[in-house]
Amino acid sequence: MVGVTSRFDSSVYAHRLAAAAAATAEAGLAGMVITPGYDLRYLIGSRAQTFERLTALVLPASGRPTMVVPRLELAALRESAVADLGVAVRDWVDGEDPYSLVGEALGGAPAAVAVTDSMAALHLLPLAAVLGATPVLATAVLRDLRMIKDAAEVDALRKAGAAIDRVHARVPEFLVPGRTEADVAADIAEAIVSEGHSEVAFIIVGSGPNGADPHHECSDRELARGDIVVVDIGGPFEPGYHSDSTRTYSLGEPNAEVAQRYSALQHAQRAAVASVRPGMTAEQVDAAARDVLAAAGLAEYFVHRTGHGIGLSVHEEPYIVAGNDVVLSAGMAFSVEPGIYFPGQWGARIEDIVLVTADGVESLNNRPHDLVVVPV
Amino acid sequence: MVGVTSRFDSSVYAHRLAAAAAATAEAGLAGMVITPGYDLRYLIGSRAQTFERLTALVLPASGRPTMVVPRLELAALRESAVADLGVAVRDWVDGEDPYSLVGEALGGAPAAVAVTDSMAALHLLPLAAVLGATPVLATAVLRDLRMIKDAAEVDALRKAGAAIDRVHARVPEFLVPGRTEADVAADIAEAIVSEGHSEVAFIIVGSGPNGADPHHECSDRELARGDIVVVDIGGPFEPGYHSDSTRTYSLGEPNAEVAQRYSALQHAQRAAVASVRPGMTAEQVDAAARDVLAAAGLAEYFVHRTGHGIGLSVHEEPYIVAGNDVVLSAGMAFSVEPGIYFPGQWGARIEDIVLVTADGVESLNNRPHDLVVVPV
Repeated sequence: MVGVTSRFDSSVYAHRLAAAAAATAEAGLAGMVITPGYDLRYLIGSRAQTFERLTALVLPASGRPTMVVPRLELAALRESAVADLGVAVRDWVDGEDPYSLVGEALGGAPAAVAVTDSMAALHLLPLAAVLGATPVLATAVLRDLRMIKDAAEVDALRKAGAAIDRVHARVPEFLVPGRTEADVAADIAEAIVSEGHSEVAFIIVGSGPNGADPHHECSDRELARGDIVVVDIGGPFEPGYHSDSTRTYSLGEPNAEVAQRYSALQHAQRAAVASVRPGMTAEQVDAAARDVLAAAGLAEYFVHRTGHGIGLSVHEEPYIVAGNDVVLSAGMAFSVEPGIYFPGQWGARIEDIVLVTADGVESLNNRPHDLVVVPV
Repeated sequence: MVGVTSRFDSSVYAHRLAAAAAATAEAGLAGMVITPGYDLRYLIGSRAQTFERLTALVLPASGRPTMVVPRLELAALRESAVADLGVAVRDWVDGEDPYSLVGEALGGAPAAVAVTDSMAALHLLPLAAVLGATPVLATAVLRDLRMIKDAAEVDALRKAGAAIDRVHARVPEFLVPGRTEADVAADIAEAIVSEGHSEVAFIIVGSGPNGADPHHECSDRELARGDIVVVDIGGPFEPGYHSDSTRTYSLGEPNAEVAQRYSALQHAQRAAVASVRPGMTAEQVDAAARDVLAAAGLAEYFVHRTGHGIGLSVHEEPYIVAGNDVVLSAGMAFSVEPGIYFPGQWGARIEDIVLVTADGVESLNNRPHDLVVVPV
């Protein structure tokens, strides 16, 4: 109910706004239009939420930014850095056309703009009609800014990583045969918050055959001796940077096939992390994991990309996937999480968040990578 | 964690899909493309959530619908009615272009389509490029369907209304001077769920000057004797239809000015509800409330529209606002919630959900409308 609304110093947002405007000009665009979501939070520290009434930051390539906001939502702007940033505030009331206000804030001429990826069609289509040009995605402009975490962001990600490590350290005590995945998830939820996250973002407890579905969340299935259990958990750490870590647990000693396959997975995850350094591409990291599993005859069981960037959003650029030739550089943070899935039987995944450093890689998760055998 | 995933019988969705396809043809469009959100839930009972990977129902104006879905998300479709509806499922994996799959499902030629209002720019812009035409909003096609609630929907809304009435009946015991708005909100949250909602959607506890901000949520402000407190609360009732009701409370007897102004508000709310019947327009209902407050010299303190439709979404069509000439007809459900706000001092609002019947109106909230005086 009561939001914890911390943000960085206003100077951080002033720097980001200036950099975003410069990138917009560089891209040959008249400006950016950013409705509530992660980009807005990144640029001005606002956690405003989208409603059917348009709230939008209009950031011209040069000149003063304008916040177009329903009068009813003015109060929600107070938590943001708007007041310290010289942003003009143009409030509007029911009956006014907010899209025209965006057009005016951009100078009134037809304008090619970038819009935030999450902008809803409800706003995007009338906005495009007013601007007389098809917008492009703001990711193209903001990607390079948002991918490179500054010192304060890295600090928050490190704290989030340590907090989720403390939760994983407690997971074995929750994994008792006869309890349901949902029971376990409830304990984990409590631990995620008590270890310092502001809330729970997601909890996957995939036991036995459920572990073979990478996007399983949790169910009323009861844990049983012999189960392999995938536990993939995370949450935001103020001011909103996420943890995301997976470990795999075995209720009792695993059989030889599980042990052998898990060992290949562990090797793949280690190889991918070891490959991370400035100058490598995202797809090369993906290939590093995939090659190890292929050599072990397990290629077909690794059915998803190797990872995703992380920050204010749990999933953001850079995506660690075939076809993504983005070059890694210092300050990027992303998951390395190969997995193997045997439908109807079991699955396993190992996931750390890693940070690209000036000359290599730092893992923000530091629990052991072995299959965690829980005595039953 | 474990979703309560009830939905209507598949026949309900079969009927809706057929009606939506007919409306699409009627509108001269090639089809609709519906990403996760309320429209998808309405059409096939799916609560899938949006991720960066495209999930979309492609509903051609004639012919078989197709669900384009990431292979990783196939399991999430199980809860929906897809399997019973003859919908083709086209799954895709990282590396494939899902937007081309949508184009193929529409026949491969340039196509004018309607897209769901919540579709993110991330998907809308590449989709528009593939289809070679600017989409329109699906609301234009689905509005008439979604606005008219069928018997099962009305039943769920009635139960939701009765449940939130039971919560309001308990609110006075929570309102104790010295407790914070957040303390009160925590009690209300528990009551919302214990009275039958599947979760909490929103809780506004606006005490004293906070009541003068219509979109205040709740804070650490401590309640004090003499406070006027706006309590606006609601949640979904399975399978997902919302309650939303506001009552205003006074900690101790109100002074004469408060009593007199509240009386005008009560008159305005009653007049607006009494005006509801088939054949009236949305804006006439808005005017019915506004005229009463204007006659009492309070027009300038009523700073928002009179109401909003409600159903799967807390805010949906029809909006009860000046300029909306939609004609009311039986089966529409919306809020009637005039309010008066005195910045820095206090505010008041009275809100019921009402249903348009064959010859008039049925209120789904039935707590007394007087200012509730809590003895302190």
